[in-house]
Amino acid sequence: MEPKPCIICVAITGSLPRKSDNPAVPISVSEQVESTHEAFEAGASIVHAHVRNDDETPSSDPEKFAALKEGLERHCPGMIIQFSTGGRSGAGQTRGGMLPLAPDMASLSVGSNNFPTRVYENPPDLVDWLAAEMKTYGVRPEIEAFDLSHIHQAAKMYADGRLEKSPYVQFVMGVKNAMPVDRDVFDYYRATMARLLPDSEWCAAGIGAHQLTLNEWVVETGGHARC
Amino acid sequence: MEPKPCIICVAITGSLPRKSDNPAVPISVSEQVESTHEAFEAGASIVHAHVRNDDETPSSDPEKFAALKEGLERHCPGMIIQFSTGGRSGAGQTRGGMLPLAPDMASLSVGSNNFPTRVYENPPDLVDWLAAEMKTYGVRPEIEAFDLSHIHQAAKMYADGRLEKSPYVQFVMGVKNAMPVDRDVFDYYRATMARLLPDSEWCAAGIGAHQLTLNEWVVETGGHARC
Ligand SMILES: [Zn+2]
Ligand SMILES: [Zn+2]
Ligand SMILES: [Zn+2]
Ligand SMILES: [Zn+2]
Repeated sequence: MEPKPCIICVAITGSLPRKSDNPAVPISVSEQVESTHEAFEAGASIVHAHVRNDDETPSSDPEKFAALKEGLERHCPGMIIQFSTGGRSGAGQTRGGMLPLAPDMASLSVGSNNFPTRVYENPPDLVDWLAAEMKTYGVRPEIEAFDLSHIHQAAKMYADGRLEKSPYVQFVMGVKNAMPVDRDVFDYYRATMARLLPDSEWCAAGIGAHQLTLNEWVVETGGHARC
Repeated sequence: MEPKPCIICVAITGSLPRKSDNPAVPISVSEQVESTHEAFEAGASIVHAHVRNDDETPSSDPEKFAALKEGLERHCPGMIIQFSTGGRSGAGQTRGGMLPLAPDMASLSVGSNNFPTRVYENPPDLVDWLAAEMKTYGVRPEIEAFDLSHIHQAAKMYADGRLEKSPYVQFVMGVKNAMPVDRDVFDYYRATMARLLPDSEWCAAGIGAHQLTLNEWVVETGGHARC
């Protein structure tokens, strides 16, 4: 039997870290393209991208996303481009303003949960609008599963046609006040995927140093990794 | 071996149903006291109570809660009184304004999630404030677990002392856009309770007709029931 390949997704920028946290964080579009290019040559197949304003704050500007996409297509041909529609870069429909660029994938939160100091709000009507835009532009969603019900909700949306493409699911663990890094939950998430979304692949994201733990777990169990 | 007793909690009013939905819904304090008295005589041990304004809209008025508590203590001596601190009756700290009345128990949501048409917001600082008030007044929390991480969060808060009394946990299932009624999840919730909160008891609430399904499951598996 052939071993199953492990997809590596590189999250080059994230929504929050600044150069003062780590001078290697790529902020400008050209920095992001070159950082992704290095990861692509090292074996990454998916790039998960946020864009930033010149002052390093999170942005949802579709023009920045367009410039990034153009650079990535030139420097990393065949790489899968995934844009973030997460809530730190803006509120409401501005979060999905780049979807008409038709990236291969986009992140999608289908529920709400607590973050370290606030509520991560993904109201049902916004979730449905983002899903509809992804359908219109042929974008495959990566579901950010901050909790168990988010996997159930993704399966329901796939079953009732709100999601057209089988969703890729990311288990997010280690966010304070949301789901901790817990092997028992990780295994139950996997069993839930097999039960509710048998045609979907899944990966895992851990906050900070937890990513290494989660990468060990996904490699061991046939999931996909992030770095 | 003695059979384990099943605690019956009666949720007499809820936050939303009106007399136009069902003329039997008790709205005034005296109606609530008499409805609870009937349930008490029929075997209910806990009353889960919301209060209402005269126009039937949800209220958090501590004076109404005080009048209700006084009536319940007179008509139903020894019954366990649980007040709701849920989010439909008010925002922010008004949700806990009745805790100085020191009811035996109060409901506590420790995370956020989606509801049918909106986000059910329980920001971390409000959760911690409600928990601190419950500690001050010796109130045992009933955790409303709308999702798996809420059980983990309750266990963490009990372990680090933010909750003083071992929390009673209610599995809430069947709320649209939150956790569906799912036997596999129900069994995993039970296993999670045994692992993380072995000294706690648990019960289950299902929306509408789902309550009957959940009552069958809790009776079968050693949990507690709601009606
Ligand atoms: Zn991201
Ligand atoms: Zn290059
Ligand atoms: Zn209630
Ligand atoms: Zn009476």
